[in-house]
Amino acid sequence: MIKVTLLVLLVLVTVSSTLGKYIPKTGKRIPQTLSRGWGDQLIWAQTYEEALYWSRSRNKPLMVIFHLEDCPHSQALKKAFSDDNEIQKMLDEDFIVLNLVYETTDKHLSPDGQYVPRIIFVDPSMTVRADINGRYSNRMYAYEPSDLKLLMTNMKKAKKLLKSEL
Amino acid sequence: MIKVTLLVLLVLVTVSSTLGKYIPKTGKRIPQTLSRGWGDQLIWAQTYEEALYWSRSRNKPLMVIFHLEDCPHSQALKKAFSDDNEIQKMLDEDFIVLNLVYETTDKHLSPDGQYVPRIIFVDPSMTVRADINGRYSNRMYAYEPSDLKLLMTNMKKAKKLLKSEL
Repeated sequence: MIKVTLLVLLVLVTVSSTLGKYIPKTGKRIPQTLSRGWGDQLIWAQTYEEALYWSRSRNKPLMVIFHLEDCPHSQALKKAFSDDNEIQKMLDEDFIVLNLVYETTDKHLSPDGQYVPRIIFVDPSMTVRADINGRYSNRMYAYEPSDLKLLMTNMKKAKKLLKSEL
Repeated sequence: MIKVTLLVLLVLVTVSSTLGKYIPKTGKRIPQTLSRGWGDQLIWAQTYEEALYWSRSRNKPLMVIFHLEDCPHSQALKKAFSDDNEIQKMLDEDFIVLNLVYETTDKHLSPDGQYVPRIIFVDPSMTVRADINGRYSNRMYAYEPSDLKLLMTNMKKAKKLLKSEL
């Protein structure tokens, strides 16, 4: 008798916890993360305004990654990028990070056009570091998975902050 | 012998999968979600630009929630809001949703100031619906957990789209 009561209770608890939360008709979804797979352990800014504020207030350079979920070049770079512990560690400790799947209204973030993947550095003085670029002359801010060493070199460049006017 | 080899293999696999990913000095973090707890099953836009684009292209009204993680009023509203299945369902099916912890540069989103929590509706015609407000005259777009019925009524108002000029 006790067993039956317990079973009924268990069923009730299960049903109520299932009923408790909204589930879409198409089935339960995995919550989207701010990292979008570019480094689940990093603390990502959500918007460019937020990222600029963090960059200024913490005096750290900002890395902005433009990418698209359905772009194979973005996906390949993301895989290599998120697997590279040296890059992840330096980003975590010395950078503000932002990844965007949508262009901002700020044209300074697309010095040579709006393509993906594209990585732009911004100095805490709010200056876009157009001088820090990759190896492709037609898409200056694009990187491929094989370019991670160059990206690391560029991150070190970005860490040398521009002198701010005081 | 085979067992020992298997064990060694298992240990190696375990060690390499642990070594495989960057872990911050302060310990492993839970990845941030775009929902920030306002509805894990909803598909959230990341930025205002993205949200406006979705709203226009899908002809759905946009709900923008301004909140702060360390604001108890925001937290209380979030709890009630995310537990309300009727609201979650209507948002999922009929709205574009965006939650922000940082103000945008668009002043139309703060018709009577920048406070949290604050819920602003935007029509697909890109018109901020300043006419859809809550019950507090000093903070017209604030809601408390007890105001969810009013919020639902306001969502229905927002679903009646403004006539766009064609």
